[in-house]
Amino acid sequence: MLPLLDSKQAPLGPGDDAGALAVSGSEVVVSVDTLVENQDFRLYWDSGFEHKAFDIGWKSIAQNVSDINAMGGVPTGAVISLSLPESTSIEWVKEFSRGISAAVQGLGAGRLAVIGGDLGKAAEISVTTTVIGECEHGKVLRSGATPGDRIAIAGRLGSAGAGLAVLDGSTQWQTWNRSVRRIVDSQCKPTPPLESGPRAAEAGASAMMDISDGLIRDASRLAKASGVNLNLNVDSLKHFAARLEPAAVLLGADPMLWVLEGGEDFGLLAVFPKGASIPEEFTVIGDVSAQTGRRTLVKIDGQIVNGARGFDHFSEAMKR
Amino acid sequence: MLPLLDSKQAPLGPGDDAGALAVSGSEVVVSVDTLVENQDFRLYWDSGFEHKAFDIGWKSIAQNVSDINAMGGVPTGAVISLSLPESTSIEWVKEFSRGISAAVQGLGAGRLAVIGGDLGKAAEISVTTTVIGECEHGKVLRSGATPGDRIAIAGRLGSAGAGLAVLDGSTQWQTWNRSVRRIVDSQCKPTPPLESGPRAAEAGASAMMDISDGLIRDASRLAKASGVNLNLNVDSLKHFAARLEPAAVLLGADPMLWVLEGGEDFGLLAVFPKGASIPEEFTVIGDVSAQTGRRTLVKIDGQIVNGARGFDHFSEAMKR
Repeated sequence: MLPLLDSKQAPLGPGDDAGALAVSGSEVVVSVDTLVENQDFRLYWDSGFEHKAFDIGWKSIAQNVSDINAMGGVPTGAVISLSLPESTSIEWVKEFSRGISAAVQGLGAGRLAVIGGDLGKAAEISVTTTVIGECEHGKVLRSGATPGDRIAIAGRLGSAGAGLAVLDGSTQWQTWNRSVRRIVDSQCKPTPPLESGPRAAEAGASAMMDISDGLIRDASRLAKASGVNLNLNVDSLKHFAARLEPAAVLLGADPMLWVLEGGEDFGLLAVFPKGASIPEEFTVIGDVSAQTGRRTLVKIDGQIVNGARGFDHFSEAMKR
Repeated sequence: MLPLLDSKQAPLGPGDDAGALAVSGSEVVVSVDTLVENQDFRLYWDSGFEHKAFDIGWKSIAQNVSDINAMGGVPTGAVISLSLPESTSIEWVKEFSRGISAAVQGLGAGRLAVIGGDLGKAAEISVTTTVIGECEHGKVLRSGATPGDRIAIAGRLGSAGAGLAVLDGSTQWQTWNRSVRRIVDSQCKPTPPLESGPRAAEAGASAMMDISDGLIRDASRLAKASGVNLNLNVDSLKHFAARLEPAAVLLGADPMLWVLEGGEDFGLLAVFPKGASIPEEFTVIGDVSAQTGRRTLVKIDGQIVNGARGFDHFSEAMKR
């Protein structure tokens, strides 16, 4: 068990062979993700910004509870494996643990507890978090979208991508204003729309996933899994881009690119049957149509975009 | 999901946000462990021996199913996160996946399935496996031993430690005979006594843990968790040492040291109430007595050993 983690809520305290978890339903969902130094985060970015250990702990919980959310579930148990170089300071580990605890409290919907962990040596910092959850309203897969359904988004879109661009950019962090810092925070300390997953499941969502690799790429995956085409409207996405103006101005970039291609906000891409009452925090951004050709397609204002290539292709198409 | 993993048994195929698992009981146990290159294994040992990717996959499953076994549970679901340098060959990943699949088949007691995973980049190979299980006979903690109980062992003791000594030793692997290779295999591809955990639980074991850090160290932990003294008999351990003779001869070492201090065989250290019918594969190695002083003790033939210092202290005491 990691130091300083609050295990009060866990059915079994730290120090035994395995953590234990009470399960009320009959189906459990499990998600795992690893964050590796210099791959998924940098301790210091090109901008000189220091990535806080707190935020790394927070994000390792956030990205996994998001996966449970995207199944329509509620997270109930987490196990964390932390590998560290010997040079890592105790203060770093304490800060990391505080980030874990804060995310468990803040994102756990009242039922999440850390039930186990492992701490070991490595040449670089690596944290693997596994989160277990339950789906009270049945699990919502990526594969259930059918023609006529409506496509909707909950949570942010493009903020974490814009934040990453700022972090990786040439502007020094001391020059960032409050609005820009808030965008950077979306990358370092994302806040997935955690209650929206079970709410969408309850509202009868036919398909759902979290957007971790960007709207176009993830929408293409959902289209493929469901065997349908997805048709998105640019107009419905403009208010997401508007929020990113401070970063766009700073970097001289097109904010719509982050909305379409930016990942890691862990917003929800959900598909609802035509008659469903879509929860109010969702924005409808398009609809589902039947697969016409050999491959499933994602179209934006009628233009085909390439899921693998993402916005580059879209952008080129727009210029023509 | 990792390539080549057999997910036929999983309730949900690969490619969704989270893996899913059917749970029949009401209590679930979870274990996590990470294997890191140059910390927990070497791709090439001092002996020139190449550590097979197959064995790394096997061991990552074995050590976690062992934790579930030590709770008296049966493993039902595994998620695997694999981080790899970009230079890693596809053949390595295939071999690793074959090792995972073989362990899932060979050690999974017919109910284990890989239900999810994550694959990412890192500077060194790192694999984190989380295994989920169920305890049909209730979970057996480390803290339930009481005076008068008997202490017993299932599985190997000292083999993996002897194997590690051979791997790390100066003798070149080409010179090893078949008996030595078998001992090395205990380190690279351990086989925990997987059915013995639930069987001990059913027989009414009062406390249990797997021996991953050596008998003395782990017995000290069980003594502390239960608030008792543990009294072990050297005679009952001699047949474990006898099996390690080939390695002892090769390295000029005392095999009893491996029996007392060697970890990673994932044998079971179980404690049974006096009247219990101990399953036949267990060897009784001592008994439990009341804590006498301020600290809980482990004694071997009446000599106090220091759990943290392990055999060194015991060895010194024997010389006096």
